[in-house]
Amino acid sequence: MIWINGQLLSPEVARIDPRDRGFTLGDGLFETLAALDGHPIDLAAHLERLARGSTVLELPLPVEATEVATAIGQVLEANGLSVGRAALRLTLSRGVGSRGLLLPLDPKPNIVITASSFPQIPSYLDAATVPIRRNEGSPLSRIKSLNYLDNVLAQQQAQALGAQEALMLNNQGRIAGFARGNLFALIGETWVTPPLADGVLDGITRAKILRNAQKSRIRVAENSLERPEIDLIRALFISNSLLGMVPIARLDGREMRMDAVLTDQIAALLID
Amino acid sequence: MIWINGQLLSPEVARIDPRDRGFTLGDGLFETLAALDGHPIDLAAHLERLARGSTVLELPLPVEATEVATAIGQVLEANGLSVGRAALRLTLSRGVGSRGLLLPLDPKPNIVITASSFPQIPSYLDAATVPIRRNEGSPLSRIKSLNYLDNVLAQQQAQALGAQEALMLNNQGRIAGFARGNLFALIGETWVTPPLADGVLDGITRAKILRNAQKSRIRVAENSLERPEIDLIRALFISNSLLGMVPIARLDGREMRMDAVLTDQIAALLID
Repeated sequence: MIWINGQLLSPEVARIDPRDRGFTLGDGLFETLAALDGHPIDLAAHLERLARGSTVLELPLPVEATEVATAIGQVLEANGLSVGRAALRLTLSRGVGSRGLLLPLDPKPNIVITASSFPQIPSYLDAATVPIRRNEGSPLSRIKSLNYLDNVLAQQQAQALGAQEALMLNNQGRIAGFARGNLFALIGETWVTPPLADGVLDGITRAKILRNAQKSRIRVAENSLERPEIDLIRALFISNSLLGMVPIARLDGREMRMDAVLTDQIAALLID
Repeated sequence: MIWINGQLLSPEVARIDPRDRGFTLGDGLFETLAALDGHPIDLAAHLERLARGSTVLELPLPVEATEVATAIGQVLEANGLSVGRAALRLTLSRGVGSRGLLLPLDPKPNIVITASSFPQIPSYLDAATVPIRRNEGSPLSRIKSLNYLDNVLAQQQAQALGAQEALMLNNQGRIAGFARGNLFALIGETWVTPPLADGVLDGITRAKILRNAQKSRIRVAENSLERPEIDLIRALFISNSLLGMVPIARLDGREMRMDAVLTDQIAALLID
């Protein structure tokens, strides 16, 4: 069952108008988050990011946070996912528009919430550096818009290279992150993650790690990573709201450190 | 009326599944073209570009060219647009997928064709250089994918600057084109248009102009244009399939040449 604009409908009945700008132009936003025993995790942070995106797109949010929380409970229950872990997706689109790029004068945005069984978290992933670049010159690289096709293509390129995850550079040749999440690289004794200005998604888990690092004795820094610095990376993790942090076992075929000391450090950074 | 997967349906009934990857990830392609008296203009060239895009996305085209031509005739007639000029849009999406970025194993693509009354072609436009950049490092900048939000935002930025059209640079600071079409700039005695590698849409009208220029005595060149060269531009046109070529009267407030000699040159370049 799908929650759409206040109604729970079967996927065969739920309907997006083919003229919806979410469909025609990718004009909208989304959030992916985890749920545990019927409760969404970090919902407030996800809704804050959605609100930041809606400001960038000048796209009003048609629901309150409390309505979203209620809807999430309903969609989890309707899909038999109220117990254990589940994956949630919230999609906001601008709604029907007339021909062309100009915004509709009286937009009627749509909200869709879907729930799926939780993906199995792999114990590690292999990553490959792919040709496709992130657009550091667009605000879309920092928010979660419906323009996600670069990431889809990057993921395909990684698979063609025999890996499961794509390391993406920006057009300056700096490391931006992974197709499915943010990047933390151990260089020397410091965990480095690229700054948002380098075309980096403003990840909820990334922000949590940066906050927690201040409280712990683990050194984390937001620094640009030039392409030659790939060779200096000793260990590498991907972070996102569903995976938490997963170690990269091999980058472009080169083995990364994956020992217990690192795993303990990472666990400390993920504590709420 | 909307043509969708072989059926003519009213917009209130026509339905895209909210799980369609065209809606959730912008995973699809589109074409915009003109029609005259019930016949699409340059349909073969548009379908060739669609086929090139479908190769980039590994997204099979579920219809033959003859079916598209028939469908276009039907949708024009159903909307009372068989006489005179009309604007057509063909949208191809990958169809329903499960959670995540990986391509569905058995995709069921959707095709939607809509027709609208033809937009009034302005006699000129004012343009402004906007902050948002085109992604020269993505193949999506050269095809017409459903990831069109950068162009939407660029157009908004141009409006905020008091102009009707957005001049977009790429991340190297080179001129890439306009939010709604390709760019031809008169520098010295040569019409210059940036090469596709600079993050430029492979425009149907752009290609026609380049072909025609070889037959005429008008000098046209595909050259990169660095930002400082903006000051050398004496005249400027936007090209796309609906507008043909429209002169830019002012760029960032500076007046451009718009005389009859130029208009005659442009007319020669658009002949089929």
